[in-house]
Amino acid sequence: MVEKLTSQSVDYPRWYQEVVQRADLAENAPVRGAMIIKPYGYGLWEQMQSVLDRMFKETGHQNAYFPLLIPESFLKKEAEHVEGFSPELAVVTHAGGKRLEEPYVIRPTSETIIWDTFRNWIQSYRDLPLLINQWANVVRWEMRPRLFLRTTEFLWQEGHTAHASEEEAHEETIRMLGVYATFAEEYMAMPVIQGMKTDREKFAGAVKTYSIEAMMGDGKALQAGTSHDLGQNFARAFDVKYQTSEGKEEYVWATSWGVSTRLVGALVMAHGDDQGLVLPPRLAPIQTVIVPIYKGSEQRSTVIEACSVMEKALQAAGARTHLDDREQFRPGFKFNEWELKGVPVRIEVGPRDLERGEVVLAFRHSGDKKSLPIEAVATEVMNVLEEAQRGLFEKALAAREANTHSIDSFDEFKERIDGGGFFLCHWDGTTETEELIQQQTKATIRNLPLDAPDDPGRCMVTGNPSPHRVIISKAY
Amino acid sequence: MVEKLTSQSVDYPRWYQEVVQRADLAENAPVRGAMIIKPYGYGLWEQMQSVLDRMFKETGHQNAYFPLLIPESFLKKEAEHVEGFSPELAVVTHAGGKRLEEPYVIRPTSETIIWDTFRNWIQSYRDLPLLINQWANVVRWEMRPRLFLRTTEFLWQEGHTAHASEEEAHEETIRMLGVYATFAEEYMAMPVIQGMKTDREKFAGAVKTYSIEAMMGDGKALQAGTSHDLGQNFARAFDVKYQTSEGKEEYVWATSWGVSTRLVGALVMAHGDDQGLVLPPRLAPIQTVIVPIYKGSEQRSTVIEACSVMEKALQAAGARTHLDDREQFRPGFKFNEWELKGVPVRIEVGPRDLERGEVVLAFRHSGDKKSLPIEAVATEVMNVLEEAQRGLFEKALAAREANTHSIDSFDEFKERIDGGGFFLCHWDGTTETEELIQQQTKATIRNLPLDAPDDPGRCMVTGNPSPHRVIISKAY
Repeated sequence: MVEKLTSQSVDYPRWYQEVVQRADLAENAPVRGAMIIKPYGYGLWEQMQSVLDRMFKETGHQNAYFPLLIPESFLKKEAEHVEGFSPELAVVTHAGGKRLEEPYVIRPTSETIIWDTFRNWIQSYRDLPLLINQWANVVRWEMRPRLFLRTTEFLWQEGHTAHASEEEAHEETIRMLGVYATFAEEYMAMPVIQGMKTDREKFAGAVKTYSIEAMMGDGKALQAGTSHDLGQNFARAFDVKYQTSEGKEEYVWATSWGVSTRLVGALVMAHGDDQGLVLPPRLAPIQTVIVPIYKGSEQRSTVIEACSVMEKALQAAGARTHLDDREQFRPGFKFNEWELKGVPVRIEVGPRDLERGEVVLAFRHSGDKKSLPIEAVATEVMNVLEEAQRGLFEKALAAREANTHSIDSFDEFKERIDGGGFFLCHWDGTTETEELIQQQTKATIRNLPLDAPDDPGRCMVTGNPSPHRVIISKAY
Repeated sequence: MVEKLTSQSVDYPRWYQEVVQRADLAENAPVRGAMIIKPYGYGLWEQMQSVLDRMFKETGHQNAYFPLLIPESFLKKEAEHVEGFSPELAVVTHAGGKRLEEPYVIRPTSETIIWDTFRNWIQSYRDLPLLINQWANVVRWEMRPRLFLRTTEFLWQEGHTAHASEEEAHEETIRMLGVYATFAEEYMAMPVIQGMKTDREKFAGAVKTYSIEAMMGDGKALQAGTSHDLGQNFARAFDVKYQTSEGKEEYVWATSWGVSTRLVGALVMAHGDDQGLVLPPRLAPIQTVIVPIYKGSEQRSTVIEACSVMEKALQAAGARTHLDDREQFRPGFKFNEWELKGVPVRIEVGPRDLERGEVVLAFRHSGDKKSLPIEAVATEVMNVLEEAQRGLFEKALAAREANTHSIDSFDEFKERIDGGGFFLCHWDGTTETEELIQQQTKATIRNLPLDAPDDPGRCMVTGNPSPHRVIISKAY
């Protein structure tokens, strides 16, 4: 028997740790706060990478690679940047058997080394926009690490772009936020809210930071991606100027944006249930699993043969399919295991199914079952998977809507915040109020939604005027 | 005008540095011995990754990811391993604002952290073989760095596998060496010799190391990939045992194998000439470039329109195609630039070509030109590229054969070694003789070819018996 997971309702954080490890996504490394991403978890990340990489290229970006180690002095060139990152740095002081004259830091993000390089790559307006992306590992010394959500080392992509005008940089910032939102919704089946972070929560060195925020299964928010309008901050810090078409010299305008292996954690918590993972078909490393059901070796050979034929037909139709023909486990054990691993569609094939010429498809996200004629399985599989993809998104959207509340009284807010969910509230725009809300409730302003309707009101804490509602929630 | 490169015959190392930088493959980073891989160079690496990754998956391997930082004590568990790598280590002594209790080293390779993990992943024969690959960056503090060939940080893949028997591990070692050879020959168009390294040259911690060795344009050898039979060395160091199907406990057998961004340097030197890079079509980020030729704006619009149609047709046919429609440069300048960048096929399109209904294709590797009816370009392009791929391999093979010499006298060897090339010589199998050859000539035994015919003879240095010839050459 597969041992049962701790129920989400009993202990959500423990459920998370268990499902990540038991579904073979990742495990803790013998290195403080780091993780080992196991093949199944890495397969999920590879699916994400492949889609995102295509989306970045379709929007005109090229990949490049910059060094892991950054001279410590580079970090210090942008004042806010170094202040934000220095508590989290890992520092190389010795190499090749000697003490280094200047220590290197392991990149916590690559703005500094990239803008130092951009100085040589950009001379004229003809060199702009410069649209670069990097797939890399970064290190940030986290105090309270959790698998995927917060690890001392993580994998990510970081886009770094240079533009000839403030408007173009702003457009790029919003465009890439939109790419992240599309990816989250259409591939992860995870609805997100695009919005601007408050000044207090913005990236160290940015003029404005934008985020996509998703709701997890326990009603908490998770920041799933950020896009930064960096203004001319890094161009000034690294002296990156260009000659305009009129022959003038001007500082370049910048953006940066990133998503990381944190998205794997988001996927786990956006859709998972007490049986384990629930993966969206478009990203699932295994989209359909075939489980043969038989008694004795004669039945076995007939059933396995039919399953093999079906496996090949499904693969030829474009579905990532696995035939679980292990002899040492019973079907019930296999059902549980593939449910734990979140495979979207299970196909059960037994002797009676073969006689009837039909098989049963079981959907992970809904628990529904459906019969299909055997010869229709391959022709229908991609439709079936798309149906499951939509169903999962709609389920997540409905859950988010059911847990989103418009609240106008701080007392009511304080009463309800521990129940989880997104709270749409008026806020007076001051850091003081923002801090007060966090101190009293542990909730934070997640973002100021881009599509917030004009809805003037009064701050729920101070009563001062507010132009529209913001999202407040507890968060990962 | 594109400035001329230093000629290979004048100064080969300088030619290499210039072509790598001027063709936009990479540049030196402001970090000792590290490089910045520019989009064109990274595009080449992405093509390599994509083919290799497919080949690894086709041979049953799965990707995973292990930490960048390794506790220093792990390195010390395998005696030869730590001895080999400790001079090259970069060490993290501080993180999160504090001195670490135990320093971490940045992985120079991942055997130690991976075998520490495999201990938990392997219990029984059912868990074997375990076939893992990792795409990662590694750091080795090189004293004499050169772009791509020897950098303090490089990108690579490292395969790590665990097996139930010595034979299976040996088979895997040879299988992956074969995958590398196939990749080198069929994709890089670079003939290689598969063979065993001498004990003196084997990987620190291996029982046997195998390599593929390629000949560069100056006649020197370059080790392009290695595959190691690790025996039970790491299993013993990290106590990784499995239960056999008979219920006995045994240590696991291991392999590891890797290729790196060094392959980009190999590609440059295997095929490059005084005009710049020569890229094999199967890996070229741009396989065909269309250069419009026109005078005045009226001709321009007709020609550009025809070029755009052709670009789309070529892309639809599966050819990575770029239309160079920049207005500020003349065709001659563009020809030089795309030759520098090694694009396999250039298509010239001018008004007279359009009138005749034909265009001229120019092949980078041979300098040949060929006319094709416009309507045949898209249907023929993949054949044309495959033809260029074969032509390039044959050219490289002919060059290697012309520069490979069977030599039986050490005096003759010493006279001819400075002229470059591979020397097939008899060697008595001792480390003393191997060291003597290197001290007197700076040449090294590259490997003992797997397919060396039985050809007993006498060591060219000592006259002692030798079963077959080995390859000796100067090397990168």
